[in-house]
Order: sequence, then structure tokens, then C-alpha cells
Amino acid sequence: MSKSISIFDTTLRDGTQGEGISLSADDKLKIAKKLDDLGVQYIEGGIPGSNTKDIEFFKRVQELGLNAKITAFGSTRRKGTVASQDANLQRILESGCQAATLVGKAWDFHVHTALQTTLEENLAMIYDSIAYLKQQGQEVIFDAEHFFDGYKNNTEYAISVVRKAQEAGADWITMCDTNGGTLPHEVHEIVSSLTSMIPQAHFSIHTHNDCELAVANTLSAVQAGARQVQGTINGYGERCGNANLCSIIPSLELKMGYQTIGTDKLMQLTSTARFVSEIANVNMPVNQPYVGNAAFAHKGGIHVSAILRDSRTYEHIVPELVGNKQRVLVSELAGQSNIVSKAKDMGLELDSTSEHSRKVIDKIKDLEHQGYQFEAADASLELLLREANGEMKELFSFESFKMLVEKTAGRAVVSEAFVKLNVAGNMVYTAAEGNGPVNALDNALRKALVQYFPDLKEMHLSDYKVRVLDEKDATAAKVRVLIESRNISNSWNTVGVSENVIEASWEALVDSMRYALMGKIMQGNEEGEDTTHRGLVNH
Amino acid sequence: MSKSISIFDTTLRDGTQGEGISLSADDKLKIAKKLDDLGVQYIEGGIPGSNTKDIEFFKRVQELGLNAKITAFGSTRRKGTVASQDANLQRILESGCQAATLVGKAWDFHVHTALQTTLEENLAMIYDSIAYLKQQGQEVIFDAEHFFDGYKNNTEYAISVVRKAQEAGADWITMCDTNGGTLPHEVHEIVSSLTSMIPQAHFSIHTHNDCELAVANTLSAVQAGARQVQGTINGYGERCGNANLCSIIPSLELKMGYQTIGTDKLMQLTSTARFVSEIANVNMPVNQPYVGNAAFAHKGGIHVSAILRDSRTYEHIVPELVGNKQRVLVSELAGQSNIVSKAKDMGLELDSTSEHSRKVIDKIKDLEHQGYQFEAADASLELLLREANGEMKELFSFESFKMLVEKTAGRAVVSEAFVKLNVAGNMVYTAAEGNGPVNALDNALRKALVQYFPDLKEMHLSDYKVRVLDEKDATAAKVRVLIESRNISNSWNTVGVSENVIEASWEALVDSMRYALMGKIMQGNEEGEDTTHRGLVNH
Repeated sequence: MSKSISIFDTTLRDGTQGEGISLSADDKLKIAKKLDDLGVQYIEGGIPGSNTKDIEFFKRVQELGLNAKITAFGSTRRKGTVASQDANLQRILESGCQAATLVGKAWDFHVHTALQTTLEENLAMIYDSIAYLKQQGQEVIFDAEHFFDGYKNNTEYAISVVRKAQEAGADWITMCDTNGGTLPHEVHEIVSSLTSMIPQAHFSIHTHNDCELAVANTLSAVQAGARQVQGTINGYGERCGNANLCSIIPSLELKMGYQTIGTDKLMQLTSTARFVSEIANVNMPVNQPYVGNAAFAHKGGIHVSAILRDSRTYEHIVPELVGNKQRVLVSELAGQSNIVSKAKDMGLELDSTSEHSRKVIDKIKDLEHQGYQFEAADASLELLLREANGEMKELFSFESFKMLVEKTAGRAVVSEAFVKLNVAGNMVYTAAEGNGPVNALDNALRKALVQYFPDLKEMHLSDYKVRVLDEKDATAAKVRVLIESRNISNSWNTVGVSENVIEASWEALVDSMRYALMGKIMQGNEEGEDTTHRGLVNH
Repeated sequence: MSKSISIFDTTLRDGTQGEGISLSADDKLKIAKKLDDLGVQYIEGGIPGSNTKDIEFFKRVQELGLNAKITAFGSTRRKGTVASQDANLQRILESGCQAATLVGKAWDFHVHTALQTTLEENLAMIYDSIAYLKQQGQEVIFDAEHFFDGYKNNTEYAISVVRKAQEAGADWITMCDTNGGTLPHEVHEIVSSLTSMIPQAHFSIHTHNDCELAVANTLSAVQAGARQVQGTINGYGERCGNANLCSIIPSLELKMGYQTIGTDKLMQLTSTARFVSEIANVNMPVNQPYVGNAAFAHKGGIHVSAILRDSRTYEHIVPELVGNKQRVLVSELAGQSNIVSKAKDMGLELDSTSEHSRKVIDKIKDLEHQGYQFEAADASLELLLREANGEMKELFSFESFKMLVEKTAGRAVVSEAFVKLNVAGNMVYTAAEGNGPVNALDNALRKALVQYFPDLKEMHLSDYKVRVLDEKDATAAKVRVLIESRNISNSWNTVGVSENVIEASWEALVDSMRYALMGKIMQGNEEGEDTTHRGLVNH
């Protein structure tokens, strides 16, 4: 049996059914380009004619000259009509797509309840629609909706749906676990029986994650003979999401001996996943398998000393195979080996035997003891290490801030911040309002700095977390603030700790901007440009 | 073969290895209580003696009188030593736990690389440690670390490790997929061969999610004969996390015919998952299977009309079976039964058919839509419900507050609050300082009220949590503050939501004091004392 699996991406169609996911035509085009670079074989773009975004997408995607087959989605003809006069089928033909996905019912219950027609008419709708598109020269993928539930409820009818699609000439027949309730051993059993019953058909698998089994169900179907996999990047999709291609592809390639996009392209997987998450504006879970930021992160001291000896001790694959990398988290549980290896990542040599290095390590451990946590604040740690290494010269120094929040009955709350800084010898005193105290501080700090460092305009805060460290003391306890900032190409994390949430936020905000400026200047130096601020960082 | 599976929760031990997860002793105790309510059989609390939090946890958890077996984790004795003199084993015995988990190496590569000892010594370490704890009357669960990698690399040695543990008297032998790289069909094959080879042993399964297969691997092991499942709530854990009990338990109970916590307790699953996520201060992915906010959310128009006809069309189970509910996105039509049942808990009858009750329910649903969450703020919900029921007459009304935070270089930060209230007809205007802005507000509010209600002296804030609701907007996003307050006999939780963290904190603080006063007065009435304030609550 062939060891080649074709990858059918439906991020742009089924993926957009996920809560909070909404993509413009531009977004869709950018993602299509990225998916094509990754080497997927099919890109399902949407439902032609259903809305202006999809109309624009199908028009403009032709100009990109992609290798993948652009695929348009639609339903079989309506009950009691003629396929050649069906408006939806017509729109698919006019979309310029290279393949069409037609969805039809495979569960008798749905035929009665949702379609409200007879089982015979449903078979005719499937046959007519596929046959018509085939006559027009289209490649047709038939999605048998609720195939597994149908098979369990009325096996004979579910099989007759598949046979009908096959007779009509469907190039691929997709077994859909639409409700996501099927278990891997059931998938294996049903797909095995189907592939042996109709060996001449090409089967595809489409699963949902309602039992956290979409990936397993997909792999199970492949082992039972499916040769196409439908899924989405990061598993986006309705309810609990679709099958996550970012987990399926590497397991097929690296662990099961199948050829999908090839091992060269596989190295783009992590950057593709992160790109799509940025465009979709959805935070990627840090613990996402294979491509997440913590997928190869190590926290425990014993684990860290073992991976430093041999990374296979606690890593199931070499992270670089999927374009990810190992990270050592610095945490109170860990020894100094973590800090040394972290410094190494930044190109800094910390020799744990030298007195200087010991001082740095002691300082970091002391800060951790005070409540700082650097595992989620790489940028603050880097600032500390570079500072200790004599690489940092400050671009501005702090004079004072004031923050006022005022609320009167019946009126909206008002937040104002007043910031005084010394920026490269100039005293800057400015004020700003905000939606809340931290926003007001951010606005005032930015306002004070942006006239000197216009590049700060490009960065923004993307996440803000607050943690109370010693709950027993509640409002008088220490507070840790973690801030994530982003610009177009990077994100970085900073930390602040204080008994005062405003002071902790200020500290993390200042670190965030210091880091943004450090990156700018270092980059400037490398490129030999932007020498205005040269020398401010002693490198 | 028995259809009963024991659930072993390791949220408090392996779960805390997850990036960004850090639990205080108080947090751990709260979660242990909740897990016990859910009905899990084992609660692994931590590593006795490894740090002050775990020392405190094992001491205080005894006082809770839980049904679950509290379990302590540790390694087998060090190489070349005697078990009875091993400090770690001694700490386990002294912890007062009801069961001990001992971890040992099952992969020859790890014995050489990480332990740096001989295969024979490793077997002796395992045998001696288990035998010693058994002699002391402990129940022992032996975690065979990297069992699957070990089995694949050196089958004979991995099996000899299991046999050794069994000979030493281990009550359970856990097959760990420590690196998370094993596939479900491999798990099935290996576990089947092991259970038939050593039928007298009781096997447990412990998987990690590095291939997004931890749930599937666990189910696969159960089908092959494992009778205990180790996992964490929400799948917290190192790298990509541990096996997610919130997905495993319902599939075992509802789809595979196994008995775990029972179908009654299963209805607490969603609230348990959300409670743990709140305590751990980690946002729950909306698309989390079974318990996520979008797990039964419907967006597509066609899907929505079908589920309104019959929810089985697009739902694999009835959401209420796991304590979740259907949501229709855009037009909120979701279930009011939760609110009705909560009111009933408080002795209030809410009849969902009356117009009054509908208004109350609509108000609460509207607040939830704005970001309030009453799951962890019972006191605020009770205030709302009693208010709607005409039982509340306010003891004070708000006029204004101001809050000032000031920081000058080289000086300590200063926080001051100014509060103006109308207390029983008297205008009170007062000011106070604090360690931070919330502490200053708390001090000023308390100062204004305590002269009229001296019993407020007895209460204090015991926990304060802040959650940013929409990270995309960072510092301009909505913020939810949860406050826990205590007096000598009770604790209660309140919530506030605003774009402004200070305003949200104020709201939760005010609710906390209102609730404290309501409790006081009601108690006073019952006892026929303290009639001074009688009539202030219209009961």
C-alpha cells in the first residue's frame, strides 16, 4: 500500500468556524501563500459566492500561482432540483478552483431531521452533483458528513452513500467524524472494513477534536487505509476544533514512515503555525505539541541536568526537525545549570566556576527568591545578563511617576499617569490618560520616549498577567506582573515584582521598552545603519 | 475483566511542572478539596520535604479528612545506599500520606546516561525501595519512567524492571510514556503483551501529550488492560502537558462503559476544570474538549438551525452530563438551569417561567457576557440573587474614591486612597495609605465602615487574583478581579470586572464587605441578638 499521504488543509474554510476566528481576504491570501510554501497538496479556500471575502479570495488567489490545488467547498444540490441549475454548484465551477469539495449526508438521522427528505433523494442529490461536476472536468472530493455516526446507526445506508459517490466518479471520498465523538478503535474498525469493501476508492479522513482524539483518529484512519488527511493549522475549527495538521504531519513523517510534505518542508512547521496564529490573532497555547513555545521546554532541575548530558533523555524528537528549539526554563526548582545554558543561548559565556559568574547567578537566584520568575520573562533575564556582562548602557533614566484613578458615583472612572524621565540628557515630563492605570502608564511612558525612539510606535503590549505571590497577605502581598510585547516579527516577555501592582507593572513596562530598544540598536549595528544611538549599548 | 478504573490525579505534582504554573500551599489545599469532591481515588500532592510549600501541604491536608488517598512522590533510593537510611524515603513515610509513588528507571539508556550506574544496581534500587516502604505498611505505586522507550530499546530489561517491582510488592505498576513520543497502536501492543505476561500485577498508565496523543494513549492502555489512569486536570504538565483527565474520564464513563468517578460526579467536571484553571491562574482554551466554553458552541447558521431541531445533530454527548452547556454564538440562548440550581442551593426559589425570574437570569447572563464569572464568586452571586429577591437593603452607598500611586527615584512608592461613602445617612470621607493601591483602598473602605460596623475588624482579605480577559488588547483590556475574604469561621469569594483594575478591585472589595455584613445581620437575627441593624436587610 502506498506510503504517500496527501494533505488537505481547511484552515481557511472549516478553521474559520472556530470561536473568535475571523479572517479577511488579505489574511486568507497570506495564509494560502504560507501553506503553499509548507507544501500541502490542497488548500480549501472557502465557499465561493457565500460572502465578499470568499469572492475576493478565489479571484485573487489565482494570481499567486501556487502549487497547491485551491479547493472550493459547497453542498450537494438542493432536494428536488437539477444539478446543472444549482446556483451553488455553478459558483464552484466559476470560482476557478482546481478541486471541489462537495458535502453530503451519510447519516440517515440527518437526512430526516436536517434535510427533511427521503433517503433515496439524498442518494440522488449526491450522485447528480458529483456526476455533474465531473462532466465539467472538475476534481471532486466528496465529504460524507457524519459518516461514522451514520455507519453506527445505519451501516447499510452509510455504505450506500459511499458507493453512490464512487459510482458518480468522486476522486476522493472523505469519511467525516463531524461531531467528533468517535473513538480511535472504532475509526480503525470502520475504515478497515470500508477500504476492504471498496478497494478501488480513494479515502480521505476528516475528524474533530471533541474527545481530544482528532489526531489519534486521523492516524488510526491512515493505518486502516485512508490516503488523504483533512485538517487545519493549530487545529482551528468549530467547537473543540478540527484535526491539528501541526501534530499529524510530523507523526506521519517522523514516526510512521509516510511521505506528506517531506522532511525538508517539515522544518517550516513551527514558523507556519506561529504565522497562522499571528494572522488569526489567536494566542498559541505554549504547550502545543511539536510547535508550541514549551514543547521542548525543561523546568525540573534533574531533567535539565539529564538533557544537558543527552537531549534524548527527555525529548521524543530533535526539535529542529519541526523548526522548533529546546528551551531551558529558569525556575526555583532548577539549579544553576539552567541559567548557564540560558546565557549560552544568548551567546554569553557564564562559567559557573568564575567569581563574576557566581555573582550573576546569585543575583538571579536572589531575585527569584523575591518573587521574580524568569521562565516566562526571557527578555528581562536577557537584560539582566547583558547588564552584568557590561553590555548595557541605559538610554533613559527614571525620575518619577504619579498615577491617579478617580471615580465618582454616576460617572466613568478616570485614569491618568504623569511620567518624568531623563532621556539622553533631556528632562521629559509628560502625562496621558488611559482605559486603566497600566494603560495610562504605558501611554505616558511611550509618549515620553517615542519622540526620541520612533520605532517604539511599532511595538505594542499583547498580554498582561498579574499574579499575587503570597495570598495569605492578600492586598498587602507581593504581586508579579508579566507583560508580553510584540512587534511585526518578534514577541518578548518581561517581569516586574512589587508589593504595589502599579510599581510592578511599571517595572515590566520599562523592561519591555528597554528590550525593544536594545534589539533595535543591535540590529542597527549589524547592518551598519542607525548609528545615532550607537555607543549607548556598550557591545 | 473489571470495568472499574481508578483515577490518579497528579495536578499538584506533575501538573506544576508546566510552564507558568506555580501553586502555593493554600492553592494546593483548595484544589485537593475540589478533586476529592469530584471523587478521584488518588491525589498526588507533591514531593515531601522538597520545599516549604509541600511540607505545609502534607501537614495541613490531613486536617481536611478527604476520601481520596493522598499520595507522596519520590525516587527510589540513591545508588550504592541502603533504603532504610534514604532521606527521601524517610520523608515519604513521615509525610502522613496514604500511598507512595516511587519513580524508577525502565530505560537502560537512562540508567547509563542519567543515573550513571549499572542495570543490576538500578534493579536493586527499585526492589529495595519498594520492599522497604511495603515493610513499613505503605501502599506503593511504582512509576516505571520511560517504560515505553525502554521497552522499544531493550524489551527484556524493561520487563525485568516491572517484574522486580512486582516481586517487591508494588500495589500498582505504572507504565510511563515520559517523553510522550509513543503512538496509540504501540501502547496497545506493549500493554497487551505485558498484561498477559504478568497477569497478577495491577497496571497503571501515565502518558504525556508531546504528539497530541496522551488521551488516546491512555484509552488504548485501558483497552489493553491498565486499571489505573494517571493524569492532570486540564492536562497541565511539563512541555506539552500530561494526559488530560477532563477528556479521559468522560470518554471512559460515557463511551467505553468503565466506572471511574461515576456519572453523578461527572456533572462536576466542568466546574472542577474551571476552578483549577482559576486557582492556577491559567486561561482555559475556549475549545477545550468536554469542559471548554466553546465545546458545545455553535456558530454556523445551518448547524444552529439543526441543533435547535435536535441537538444530537451536532453534539456528540449531552453537555449537561459533564456539567457544561450548549451555547449558540451571536444570539445567546444558553441554559438557565445553572442559575436556577444555584439559587436553590441558597434557599431561593427561581421559577424560570415567571417574568421576575427571567429578568434575574437575563441580568446574570448579561453580566457573564461582560466577563463576570460566578463560578468562583459565590458571594457576589448570592448578593445579586438576594437583591433581585428584594432581600437586600444597602447599608451604605458610594459617593466617590480617588487612588494615588506616586514613585520618585530613590524613594519608596507611596499609595493613598480617599473614600467618600454615605453610611446610614452619614457622609463619611476618609483616607488611608497602603502597601499597594488595593491595600490602600481596602484600608480606606474599612476605616470608613468600621466605626459603624465593628465586626468588620474580624474579617480580612485572604486571596486576591487578577485575570486579563482579552489579551489581544493587553493594557486596555477588561480585567476580572477575584477576592477571597475570611473571618474566623467562613470564607467567601467576590468578583469585580472593569477595564480598570482599580475599579474592578473596588467592586470586589465592596461586595466582600456587603457580604460580611449580610452574614452578620442574618446570623444576628437567628440568634435574636444584635438587633441594632435589624431591618436594614428586608427579609
